[in-house]
Amino acid sequence: MIHFECDYTEGCHPAILEKLTETNDEQTSGYGLDPHCEHARAIIRDLCKSPDADVHFLVGGTQANTTVIASILRPYQGVLCAVTGHINVHETGAIEAAGHKVLPLESTDGKITAAQIRKAYDIHYHDSEHEHIVQPGMVYISQSTENGTIYSKEELQSISDICRKCSLPLFLDGARLGYALASPKNDLTMEDLASLCDVFYIGGTKVGALFGEAVVITSPTLKPNFRYMIKQRGGMLAKGRLLGIQFETLLAGGEDSLYFEISNHAIELAIKLKEAFLKKGYRLLFDSFTNQQYPILPDNIVDKLSKSFSFSTWSKVDDDHTAIRICTSWATRPEAVENLIDHL
Amino acid sequence: MIHFECDYTEGCHPAILEKLTETNDEQTSGYGLDPHCEHARAIIRDLCKSPDADVHFLVGGTQANTTVIASILRPYQGVLCAVTGHINVHETGAIEAAGHKVLPLESTDGKITAAQIRKAYDIHYHDSEHEHIVQPGMVYISQSTENGTIYSKEELQSISDICRKCSLPLFLDGARLGYALASPKNDLTMEDLASLCDVFYIGGTKVGALFGEAVVITSPTLKPNFRYMIKQRGGMLAKGRLLGIQFETLLAGGEDSLYFEISNHAIELAIKLKEAFLKKGYRLLFDSFTNQQYPILPDNIVDKLSKSFSFSTWSKVDDDHTAIRICTSWATRPEAVENLIDHL
Amino acid sequence: MIHFECDYTEGCHPAILEKLTETNDEQTSGYGLDPHCEHARAIIRDLCKSPDADVHFLVGGTQANTTVIASILRPYQGVLCAVTGHINVHETGAIEAAGHKVLPLESTDGKITAAQIRKAYDIHYHDSEHEHIVQPGMVYISQSTENGTIYSKEELQSISDICRKCSLPLFLDGARLGYALASPKNDLTMEDLASLCDVFYIGGTKVGALFGEAVVITSPTLKPNFRYMIKQRGGMLAKGRLLGIQFETLLAGGEDSLYFEISNHAIELAIKLKEAFLKKGYRLLFDSFTNQQYPILPDNIVDKLSKSFSFSTWSKVDDDHTAIRICTSWATRPEAVENLIDHL
Amino acid sequence: MIHFECDYTEGCHPAILEKLTETNDEQTSGYGLDPHCEHARAIIRDLCKSPDADVHFLVGGTQANTTVIASILRPYQGVLCAVTGHINVHETGAIEAAGHKVLPLESTDGKITAAQIRKAYDIHYHDSEHEHIVQPGMVYISQSTENGTIYSKEELQSISDICRKCSLPLFLDGARLGYALASPKNDLTMEDLASLCDVFYIGGTKVGALFGEAVVITSPTLKPNFRYMIKQRGGMLAKGRLLGIQFETLLAGGEDSLYFEISNHAIELAIKLKEAFLKKGYRLLFDSFTNQQYPILPDNIVDKLSKSFSFSTWSKVDDDHTAIRICTSWATRPEAVENLIDHL
Repeated sequence: MIHFECDYTEGCHPAILEKLTETNDEQTSGYGLDPHCEHARAIIRDLCKSPDADVHFLVGGTQANTTVIASILRPYQGVLCAVTGHINVHETGAIEAAGHKVLPLESTDGKITAAQIRKAYDIHYHDSEHEHIVQPGMVYISQSTENGTIYSKEELQSISDICRKCSLPLFLDGARLGYALASPKNDLTMEDLASLCDVFYIGGTKVGALFGEAVVITSPTLKPNFRYMIKQRGGMLAKGRLLGIQFETLLAGGEDSLYFEISNHAIELAIKLKEAFLKKGYRLLFDSFTNQQYPILPDNIVDKLSKSFSFSTWSKVDDDHTAIRICTSWATRPEAVENLIDHL
Repeated sequence: MIHFECDYTEGCHPAILEKLTETNDEQTSGYGLDPHCEHARAIIRDLCKSPDADVHFLVGGTQANTTVIASILRPYQGVLCAVTGHINVHETGAIEAAGHKVLPLESTDGKITAAQIRKAYDIHYHDSEHEHIVQPGMVYISQSTENGTIYSKEELQSISDICRKCSLPLFLDGARLGYALASPKNDLTMEDLASLCDVFYIGGTKVGALFGEAVVITSPTLKPNFRYMIKQRGGMLAKGRLLGIQFETLLAGGEDSLYFEISNHAIELAIKLKEAFLKKGYRLLFDSFTNQQYPILPDNIVDKLSKSFSFSTWSKVDDDHTAIRICTSWATRPEAVENLIDHL
Repeated sequence: MIHFECDYTEGCHPAILEKLTETNDEQTSGYGLDPHCEHARAIIRDLCKSPDADVHFLVGGTQANTTVIASILRPYQGVLCAVTGHINVHETGAIEAAGHKVLPLESTDGKITAAQIRKAYDIHYHDSEHEHIVQPGMVYISQSTENGTIYSKEELQSISDICRKCSLPLFLDGARLGYALASPKNDLTMEDLASLCDVFYIGGTKVGALFGEAVVITSPTLKPNFRYMIKQRGGMLAKGRLLGIQFETLLAGGEDSLYFEISNHAIELAIKLKEAFLKKGYRLLFDSFTNQQYPILPDNIVDKLSKSFSFSTWSKVDDDHTAIRICTSWATRPEAVENLIDHL
Repeated sequence: MIHFECDYTEGCHPAILEKLTETNDEQTSGYGLDPHCEHARAIIRDLCKSPDADVHFLVGGTQANTTVIASILRPYQGVLCAVTGHINVHETGAIEAAGHKVLPLESTDGKITAAQIRKAYDIHYHDSEHEHIVQPGMVYISQSTENGTIYSKEELQSISDICRKCSLPLFLDGARLGYALASPKNDLTMEDLASLCDVFYIGGTKVGALFGEAVVITSPTLKPNFRYMIKQRGGMLAKGRLLGIQFETLLAGGEDSLYFEISNHAIELAIKLKEAFLKKGYRLLFDSFTNQQYPILPDNIVDKLSKSFSFSTWSKVDDDHTAIRICTSWATRPEAVENLIDHL
């Protein structure tokens, strides 16, 4: 069985294990206050051209999302996001467990628009009974989205503009950021993200690390006391250096780093798959240019594929067709992709 | 200006003030452990033909909803309800502040169906990643709904059956229960509610009391330690007898009590209004047979009415028409209704 | 049986019931936005000589405490208070249910000192691992305390000074404020409280009202969006005017108002009792000059008293003596006090 | 500088990195549902002689503590623990952020007794106002404690008996369990822990793993739906196998496993240090037989040591003496210990 069902079926890029082994006997302080974390922070600030950014390393995505959101919102505020957003559908209510309503905005492709944010904001304050309704307190988006789509620079600029007008901090979930940046349709840089968002994270778990997400806070008002939040939310790893070591390994070299190299690898294979689906005449559920591809296949092909490959069944499209999700990753072997194409 | 915008613009039925005055010098224990509360409990158990029911008196609706829901759900569970439900839209996130996601089901008239509940339940457990998704833990409905509609006995029976099959406690918000029971379309009794729901409440605030909701718990598993929850959630009134006195005044006599009498009064006037709207050729946004009426009026009529009457603007229906909400209540004077009809 | 066990065994001062009856047919807006609430707010601002104060009316003490504290603290912060403080021992964990640790300071008489606050603050920030420890975020005191003691102006001034130096908002729970102000040892005015605290409340429930506490916010940073918090925490009474009417009845006339008059009445009787205990040679557990008195009595006297009077047993002092708590209130009849004295 | 300040200054036992490297290319399912986790579970069940135990792997201690406690308690319940317990003092209020009060019991050595638990339980239920007070809902202890002390089998048996009588689930935090089991004073086995506790965890982070704690649930009532809690609390590692691989490496072989071997190593060095302190005539703050040692040293010795060694300053004992904490671990080199002894 060859796995295509997600981007975390393997361990990590071998360079990380090498670096962990090499540094294993070093004695360092705990909780992210060691030289490796400091080094990784410096690399990230540099890459973001944000010398004043605060950088924190958290273990996983749910933790990063909950910690950031709980840190920003006041008790009566909620977070605007796509109805399909990870925090709305796939965190077992972690945001609500931290006391906050997720305020869903309609979306067919995983993205939301500046106009939707503006409208939600206006509707709230135009309601004479707005004190009886959860106040929009921030905006959450992901890049790439759950549907493989990405925001263009123009779209992100518009969202950022509206957020600043409405004093709504903008948070970008970059669990798959490497794959978004490597997309042929991408026109955003890490620097753009740092300048347009108030806080975002650079995903490691899905892009070559064993685990870990690097949260970058650029907004001065969101910086103070964030480490208290990390500790309270269970995210302050005793051996914090494990995260620092991983991110220095992945990101050293900036835009020429391993992170970008392995992301490009995943995207090349994803685009190859996409072209193969199109060439065979299959439609796509979402027009994705990232590592998640959503072909709509005849059910007999789905059955045939499932004998040799694992993947996610996304939705039944009609009586004879099903949309599936195929993920490539930093670890996908080109032969596996060829093999899958041969089975179509 | 004559007020029709809600069902709590006046104080309370004069009999309550008389009883409060009459009992004012009595010395009693606090926190709902006094003879008046005990008496009111006995009346309610009798009315519900549920000698074993636990009855608690809470100050208001948000408090009753939050306390009941927080008491039932486990941390990873959410509450199924109509997308239009009060707890989803009009409690400033009180349910989420207690840690729980509201799981909205589509609804055009404020009601949900047994089939929708079953489907939501099945979708959850059929998902191989259901541990990543909030588990449905209970069902919330209101009688009457935010749209003035009511559940028939058959509908409530179906919902109750599904809930029991799926082990989902059923909670009915009866903030406007008096008006539902007095509706000409109603075929449910208080006894039915007690037998079909696991917990429900008899609304006082909107039906003649100064304030107060009587929570009736019939499910044995939901009874223990509920008073701890009331206290923690700020609902344990020091002079709890105020609630007991109000409910004994309203409900003494059971189905012949003041509560039913004044509810009938409100419904008669509401139906009179409804018939007047229809006679004038106006359509209705919701086909309500309770105290909330939703006529769709030409904008010039809306403007004219607003000079003498206050009411809620519900939604813009087209370029020239607006749906408004008119509420009658126990306190509505027949002349006020005549007066409004004359202005149509 | 004559009740002395707490200050809320009766209904309310008759003037309140009269006013409720007189205004009962008025139609007003809900949620505290009516003319009675506005009038009561004006009276309170005047009494506090704080024309810019925000004034909100909440139903009870637990609710007021939780709403204020949840509104002030960030998620990683806790509230400093006496280990005997109401929020630490007698709210069924309401503060923790809102996500915050109560940080107890030692106290033998219910009071805490400026030095204790300073020390707790310093200990926190001197700890190199302070991010692993709950950050002190505010200070809670009560006037009078659970032990009947009161803060002098000098003490409150010191506490206020330290709080401002440490940027710790100061919150005073005034559930029994009337009785504190009426104490012969008191040297604080309502104006002092408004100027020395960031937020405090004027208790109604225990001082002649049916229920209700008037929260006065003087700190500009604590004012915004407080009504969202009230709604979310279940404290926004639909018929908010009930609270406005009560406070305008109690406080109209400022320092010559009913509130001060009935508080004085309670204190006169409490001091009479205190003197009787001392005259009989009994010691006192706390040297209280407010409406709660804590005589240490021989057990046979306690037994004898308990046949005719209800009161709280506070603590066993030695094999033959027990400290009890006797409360007077606005409603206590002088004959009841004489009667009790006769039984000593 | 040689580090003795905690038990997590190095990476992990080399065997773990080897196993991670060896398995790195395997493709497995995520979220702890892979063969390595299954294998580690089987080893642990075997070691505990508890074939029906549920075993879950979480990333760290705060997370394990919060997830277990939030899973057990009802909203109005709190957790009894030593006032010095980690959850009371060193988790930035994580338990309170999950809505629960920590109910501290006095302790001078980090331990609590069965009698204290019984008393706290009785005090609660004997209070006529117990509904106003947080209900004890479970008991938390750690083995070893924050002070290096351990419970004997007899002590744990007594605690377990009382807990079962009072229906209080017993939770043992085993962050340093290896060091407790390796103590010369220990008379408990893993099997004993599984039988006497309702839930406990086997700490990895401090005992040779990169990170990770293995939660063992033996009580049938605590098992259902625990994975939902893990996910919600941010503890469901995408590449869950990392935890499985670590625990199978550490625990394969049961009582002859690496886990016991490296724990013994740490304890031998700790006892060597302890004996050296005593031989030099220094007193000990706590009489620890585990890997944390608390000598009381003259300040000039403390100063001298601090030039070459890092350790924690625990408390100032008198004008000239300070108690410090020295930790050994699986990674401590015997030469480092010799070196430190030479400096005394």
